[in-house]
Amino acid sequence: MKIACQKNELLNSVNIALKAVSSKSTMPILECIVIEVQNDTIKLISNDMEIGIETIVKGSIISNGSVAINAKVFSEIIRKLPDNEVNVETDEKFMTTITCEKAKFTIAGKSAEEFPMLPTIEKKEAIELSQFTLKEVIRQTVFSISDNESNKIMTGELFEINGNELRVVSLDGHRISIRKVELKNSYAPKKILVPGKTLQEVSKILSGEISDEVFIYYTDRHVLFVFDDTLVLSRLIEGEYYKIDQMLSGDYETKVKINKKEFLSCIDRATLLIKETEKKPIIVGIEDKKLELKINTSIGTMDEDIDIEKEGKDILIGFNPKFLIDALRVIDDEEVEIYLINPKAPCFIKDKEESYIYLILPVSFNAAQY
Amino acid sequence: MKIACQKNELLNSVNIALKAVSSKSTMPILECIVIEVQNDTIKLISNDMEIGIETIVKGSIISNGSVAINAKVFSEIIRKLPDNEVNVETDEKFMTTITCEKAKFTIAGKSAEEFPMLPTIEKKEAIELSQFTLKEVIRQTVFSISDNESNKIMTGELFEINGNELRVVSLDGHRISIRKVELKNSYAPKKILVPGKTLQEVSKILSGEISDEVFIYYTDRHVLFVFDDTLVLSRLIEGEYYKIDQMLSGDYETKVKINKKEFLSCIDRATLLIKETEKKPIIVGIEDKKLELKINTSIGTMDEDIDIEKEGKDILIGFNPKFLIDALRVIDDEEVEIYLINPKAPCFIKDKEESYIYLILPVSFNAAQY
Repeated sequence: MKIACQKNELLNSVNIALKAVSSKSTMPILECIVIEVQNDTIKLISNDMEIGIETIVKGSIISNGSVAINAKVFSEIIRKLPDNEVNVETDEKFMTTITCEKAKFTIAGKSAEEFPMLPTIEKKEAIELSQFTLKEVIRQTVFSISDNESNKIMTGELFEINGNELRVVSLDGHRISIRKVELKNSYAPKKILVPGKTLQEVSKILSGEISDEVFIYYTDRHVLFVFDDTLVLSRLIEGEYYKIDQMLSGDYETKVKINKKEFLSCIDRATLLIKETEKKPIIVGIEDKKLELKINTSIGTMDEDIDIEKEGKDILIGFNPKFLIDALRVIDDEEVEIYLINPKAPCFIKDKEESYIYLILPVSFNAAQY
Repeated sequence: MKIACQKNELLNSVNIALKAVSSKSTMPILECIVIEVQNDTIKLISNDMEIGIETIVKGSIISNGSVAINAKVFSEIIRKLPDNEVNVETDEKFMTTITCEKAKFTIAGKSAEEFPMLPTIEKKEAIELSQFTLKEVIRQTVFSISDNESNKIMTGELFEINGNELRVVSLDGHRISIRKVELKNSYAPKKILVPGKTLQEVSKILSGEISDEVFIYYTDRHVLFVFDDTLVLSRLIEGEYYKIDQMLSGDYETKVKINKKEFLSCIDRATLLIKETEKKPIIVGIEDKKLELKINTSIGTMDEDIDIEKEGKDILIGFNPKFLIDALRVIDDEEVEIYLINPKAPCFIKDKEESYIYLILPVSFNAAQY
């Protein structure tokens, strides 16, 4: 195998493939990237057994063949080479020589035959959306998956396709994040549960351009993201997702309209009084025209008022400030509307069209301390 | 005590004072900043018993007084306040209230009487140089102090004043860094040994502007840096510094002129083959017109040629690549000259005027492996 590529082309592709390389695996071969040169194509392949990536490198083929090469070492070498043409050549014992200008590296590779290649899945229907939309929708929901592996379902996001609507849902037992996206085409109803880690890695590779498309194929066991010169294949999480619609009642006793940035800065200031070991809630008191935010911890106290528009009853309610911050950060509206029922019931931050819904459970607190 | 300051003025001063706050002290009072308001001046004071800082805050005084307040909490509060006027007020029990717009924080302070104030030192002669020069000279030498506290002398830098010359020296047993600076005035000969940590902190506070001055006062036990609205007082390290002049012979067998950036990139590439646990040298082979850099580790091999101008003998010599990188990084010249004697003798990187001298000891290696 022998190829010649521009350093930056090769580096971009290596960086994509790195997203599916195991950092600590019991199988050393999974720490490798495979360079596969055949059918006039140079392909980089990586696979950590959950996610697999194939990406095409632009370059010239001098001879066909393949090699599995340590991903970390290979990527660091490419990164540090001068900005010029890079040659990669492998001999029959998989000794791999990388040359660029006057620099010459030699490292030992392995046979690509040892490497677990990606399963071929049947490409039937694919939903199509812009890379921008997919990247946004991941950012706006992925923070509320659970990282507790003992409950697999919560570590994934529900992608629910119905007609021309894609609904993306994540939840961790304290909150639910929902985003709706309108699709260009219409599809048969389908629910798939995509691992959060897959979405995080896909999000890092997506260009995020509105004009670039991504195609999402799905079978009962796999999901395949195809975009640019890259495909990312992932297992789906098996099992039934939570029935969330029954939690999304439209009733409320109090409705607040508040400037998002002011509210976010105010909560952010309050959190600096919270030590990591101390799980203190912030207390939100809502009256006519005024939201008062209070916190009282071992470090000190803070209170601050924000002007609001209010409908309905006054209420005093406690929250984990992180949950409010996470939701507010990913809402792009200047003003947000918050719907509350009572200090024990979930609160909702949502827009009129329900293109987003963030449900947050309150926390109980000792009112005498505030 | 009650003051009013603009948020950014206060934050800048707090950030300066933070540089001398103990992060983990057995004396909780040392984790505080003192706000001292008297004689029409608002001063922040910090002291970790090695370094002490006093800095003046621009602002309005409503009433005099003082308080010691937890530096970390206070700085985080100020940082997160809106960009507007901040009021700080202390009551007779040192409860401190910080208000800005509608935000109000209350935290417990302590009496400033518990705080170890900075000793007053006699301000006699001061050397004067630009903040730019001092900041540069610290950057160009401080990397080769030792962080091994068992040899105190090596953790400091020698400031040697002689006439209108300041020579700054640091060494760690494997290398020596020397920078010479011409002063505007002439001074009596004096050597002081300034803790490296002091220089690192001073360097962070210095504006680095050519037009801003810094005055360095010294007694037998202390050094005092005065600049802008700030003074930094530090103990000196006691003891006799190494006699380095006898190590700085002008003899050489080989002289090389090399492009600094090429040499640095080449060494940088080579180091990626070195695992942290494996202390492999890079091998530099110097012949007519060509420097060949080679490395051979458990990860792989690399070699690369660089065009050079050479005078004198050929030589094959091993180095710890970090030492070469550290020195080359802080030299601003496009081309550097390297002087070598033999594979066991120190090499020198220096300019003709000896405004800088970097001495680096070679390491032995098994020539059969290369």
